[in-house]
Amino acid sequence: MKNRKLLMIPGPIEFTPEVLRAMGMVTTSHVAPNFVEIFGQALERLRDVFLCPDGQPFIVAGSGTLAMDMAVANLVEPGDRVLVVDTGYFSERFAAILSRYGAEVTQVPAPAVGDVPPLEAVEGALRETGYKLMTITHVDTSTGVRADIRRLAALGRDHGALVLVDGVCATAAEEMRQQEWGIDVALTASQKAIGVPPGLALLVAGPRAIAAYHARQTPVPNYYADWTEWLPIMEAYEARQRRYFATPPVNLIWALHASLGQILAEGMEARFARHRMLSQAFKAAMEALGLQLVPVRPELAAHTLSAVYYPEGVDASVLGAINAAGVILAGGLHPAIRARYFRVGHMGAVNAADVLATVGAIEAGLAEVGYNFEPGAGLAGAQEVMVTSEE
Amino acid sequence: MKNRKLLMIPGPIEFTPEVLRAMGMVTTSHVAPNFVEIFGQALERLRDVFLCPDGQPFIVAGSGTLAMDMAVANLVEPGDRVLVVDTGYFSERFAAILSRYGAEVTQVPAPAVGDVPPLEAVEGALRETGYKLMTITHVDTSTGVRADIRRLAALGRDHGALVLVDGVCATAAEEMRQQEWGIDVALTASQKAIGVPPGLALLVAGPRAIAAYHARQTPVPNYYADWTEWLPIMEAYEARQRRYFATPPVNLIWALHASLGQILAEGMEARFARHRMLSQAFKAAMEALGLQLVPVRPELAAHTLSAVYYPEGVDASVLGAINAAGVILAGGLHPAIRARYFRVGHMGAVNAADVLATVGAIEAGLAEVGYNFEPGAGLAGAQEVMVTSEE
Repeated sequence: MKNRKLLMIPGPIEFTPEVLRAMGMVTTSHVAPNFVEIFGQALERLRDVFLCPDGQPFIVAGSGTLAMDMAVANLVEPGDRVLVVDTGYFSERFAAILSRYGAEVTQVPAPAVGDVPPLEAVEGALRETGYKLMTITHVDTSTGVRADIRRLAALGRDHGALVLVDGVCATAAEEMRQQEWGIDVALTASQKAIGVPPGLALLVAGPRAIAAYHARQTPVPNYYADWTEWLPIMEAYEARQRRYFATPPVNLIWALHASLGQILAEGMEARFARHRMLSQAFKAAMEALGLQLVPVRPELAAHTLSAVYYPEGVDASVLGAINAAGVILAGGLHPAIRARYFRVGHMGAVNAADVLATVGAIEAGLAEVGYNFEPGAGLAGAQEVMVTSEE
Repeated sequence: MKNRKLLMIPGPIEFTPEVLRAMGMVTTSHVAPNFVEIFGQALERLRDVFLCPDGQPFIVAGSGTLAMDMAVANLVEPGDRVLVVDTGYFSERFAAILSRYGAEVTQVPAPAVGDVPPLEAVEGALRETGYKLMTITHVDTSTGVRADIRRLAALGRDHGALVLVDGVCATAAEEMRQQEWGIDVALTASQKAIGVPPGLALLVAGPRAIAAYHARQTPVPNYYADWTEWLPIMEAYEARQRRYFATPPVNLIWALHASLGQILAEGMEARFARHRMLSQAFKAAMEALGLQLVPVRPELAAHTLSAVYYPEGVDASVLGAINAAGVILAGGLHPAIRARYFRVGHMGAVNAADVLATVGAIEAGLAEVGYNFEPGAGLAGAQEVMVTSEE
């Protein structure tokens, strides 16, 4: 922490020293035997982190948006009907990408910002007509709302739709059992709970998704995202063979290998539990300070980040005061409420000390801008959860 | 060099300590004021390195293939006629990408592997019909052949075609004056002469290309590559404003900022001259050892890499012996001659010591596999060029 600030935004997050060392190591050839080996291991580890033993992993240079683009470009053909479970900014992005590739998109809206579409509404839409695909945003980074992907995926599959989950602000932190829950494609970006600096699009496709891709009538209309090019590459590296399509982002993949190793060493169950506990502690702190969450019900709130309304009389200028106290937070992103809330990421290598430091800085910032509260109340609220937690 | 080998492939190359430090630094927020500033500076520096004062730079997470895909997806509409100056593997890739987006592609072939299409043949094709676009591979990484982009670009513009140059194994090392030479789009990847680990697609579009993009009749059919999304982002960062589309690859951009700074500190003229001189030295060494280049005439040979035929009685197993002697080289890539040649990258931060170390290891490898030559002849050949060079 010396001379620098704690980065508690919903990605990029704080990365571990091991990951940063891998980033800065002398770059190997992309076909060197040691790189082929760690790329192969990274693919295997990705499958383990996504809990998808029968999935096909993809690791490609790009952002999370590329992962979304890749999923849609490979699975959608013009005229395909797609149902979008709309929980915010990134669900809307899915709709935009889907439309670009000619899908006929139906969005099931949430009744309000911070809410999710009722399961009954989703089921009603699925009953009305056939859909090739259904998309769900696991955690919408704009609102901090978490969708019930387990039940939604079951609904989708029951009605014959391929289920596609955007896990950008969730995967490797929020509980997701891709294979068991019947999720056909799950995708994320490196800089969130995966714990690697931005620059990697990550995706695991199950057998039904791969079959749907093979059954296409038309070529994939996007060259860089085309699984026709990438599938042989991923298969080759996993078989520990070199094969060339585009130069892989070597240092990022060494860093991914390191981070996935740390994630699996912790264990997925322990990792899900740690994120739940730290999130509850942080949210208890906000409540103790009299602040309200954007998600309209506690069970809708993500464990990877918190979207919090500014209290009466406070605006975005408090973020500068919190920054001065040593912690960087993010402003609002959802257009409907952008200026009224802020966002705090608590995922990846985050620990109790980070949460307390963040609550402390928020208290300092609130005090600085004249908000009336009992100093230490937030810290006590967080600590109570952390001390009494059995997780 | 302790405990590790010198990486002399045509990318990824050896990176400077400053670049690797930037890669491994603690990741900043993508909207932090210091990151916004260096992203803005990186855009400005890219314009200077491409020698294109009126160009619009793009810096996006992805590979060099994404840069090619982006150029084509934004400029081509179905039915557009495009002329491909075909100098090898990567020209063929351009043709494949162009076809994907519905272009009617005409390829002007080279008379043989290692040669370039005659200027007259290109001019003949341009006279025959109108082309919206013409693509040139500056240096084909598969053959080490360098196209005369200055004269080809002039031809293309004279006939009303937009000129698109793939500079993946050239830009920031081979002479290219984008604006002066009338090149409408130049693109490259980070891991070549730009000197940054793989993971960035880099592109500079001149005013005619941007105008052609604005004049499109149809939406860009690729979401992730769409300038509609990226143009406002690049303009915002250059104006030192934060704006979100997809999380930029923060560490790679810090590294790019560092490397472009080093490139401009050397100066483009000095940099072009250094690459010419070291390339001549390396090629003199190969000649002194009795080895032949893939490019059929010396003036066609790139300065960024050398593609060299194995001598009589030697095959790809020599690469293992050269590796054992401490230097990593690349095998063949062009399908027609893949097993008959090897490739040596000498670009970016490469210096005389690297060239001598490489020649020394090649001599050691050749001796190991029983090739008959005078030890030291290659080193002497290289040294003679380096000592007598006025560059």
